Amino acid sequence: MRETVQLLMLGIGLTCMALPSQAQTPHSSTLTDISTLLHSQADAWNNGNIEGYMEGYWKSDSLIFTSGATVQRGWNATLRKYKTSYDTREKMGKLEFSDLEISELSDSSAWVLGRWKLLRAHDAPGGVFSLILRKFSGGWKIVHDHTSATPAADLRSKQQ
Amino acid sequence: MRETVQLLMLGIGLTCMALPSQAQTPHSSTLTDISTLLHSQADAWNNGNIEGYMEGYWKSDSLIFTSGATVQRGWNATLRKYKTSYDTREKMGKLEFSDLEISELSDSSAWVLGRWKLLRAHDAPGGVFSLILRKFSGGWKIVHDHTSATPAADLRSKQQ
Repeated sequence: MRETVQLLMLGIGLTCMALPSQAQTPHSSTLTDISTLLHSQADAWNNGNIEGYMEGYWKSDSLIFTSGATVQRGWNATLRKYKTSYDTREKMGKLEFSDLEISELSDSSAWVLGRWKLLRAHDAPGGVFSLILRKFSGGWKIVHDHTSATPAADLRSKQQ
Repeated sequence: MRETVQLLMLGIGLTCMALPSQAQTPHSSTLTDISTLLHSQADAWNNGNIEGYMEGYWKSDSLIFTSGATVQRGWNATLRKYKTSYDTREKMGKLEFSDLEISELSDSSAWVLGRWKLLRAHDAPGGVFSLILRKFSGGWKIVHDHTSATPAADLRSKQQ
């Protein structure tokens, strides 16, 4: 597990984006907090702990998870969907995030652009995600996740 | 053109989301401004005016447009991509937005979840988009667009 975390820590390239107009100095604590949240998610996932992974999301019926042009609403429904889709450790594989760009929108809101990959025995699906996070009294949580997967045909051509 | 705009106005169901924790009363002007921006984009598109459509986006090299798990950066590059992909009115079709949910994140930032559809002679691609907008001195602009398309196979099964 430690190796996995170290790899993830090394693999994530953090970029902090400031918007030139209405520039807002990004707080290093925000970058650290959100980076830690995402590391913790990957860590939990790679321990086979989907509930732990889901701790990064807003525990609310208003959580919105968009993937493959479908919209899933609510923390509980999202957890169920994950548990159904990834019901074995083989399907879960090893999750890696990379190319993270964290942008503050206000003191209590931010967004993240990044890439994800699942390293599995027979394939390595991956793609891009956009997250919107809010800072609650309990810390930063993802309130919206829009995830896209690279089409399988494109993945194959890149692996050749 | 007027018919098109009316159809779009009728077709868009606006929802205003307030986050229960740290609730922020959404400003009606924000909803109106962002709704108007999106209507104007569809209006321009349906007039064959891609530059007009692009007016809704932040005119910056830092604009990020994510589609099909690829990341496009910069207003000019995004415009070029659109002009290449939609080089005829037939390919542009008629753009419709629906199911828009506009959420304020702060006085100067917001996000939108919605569905898009292109009505064309021989197909009707569509999907989901998430937008992040910032309020600049010149008004609201999209700074990040993450668009997903419904896979063609799913579209066909839904049309059957």
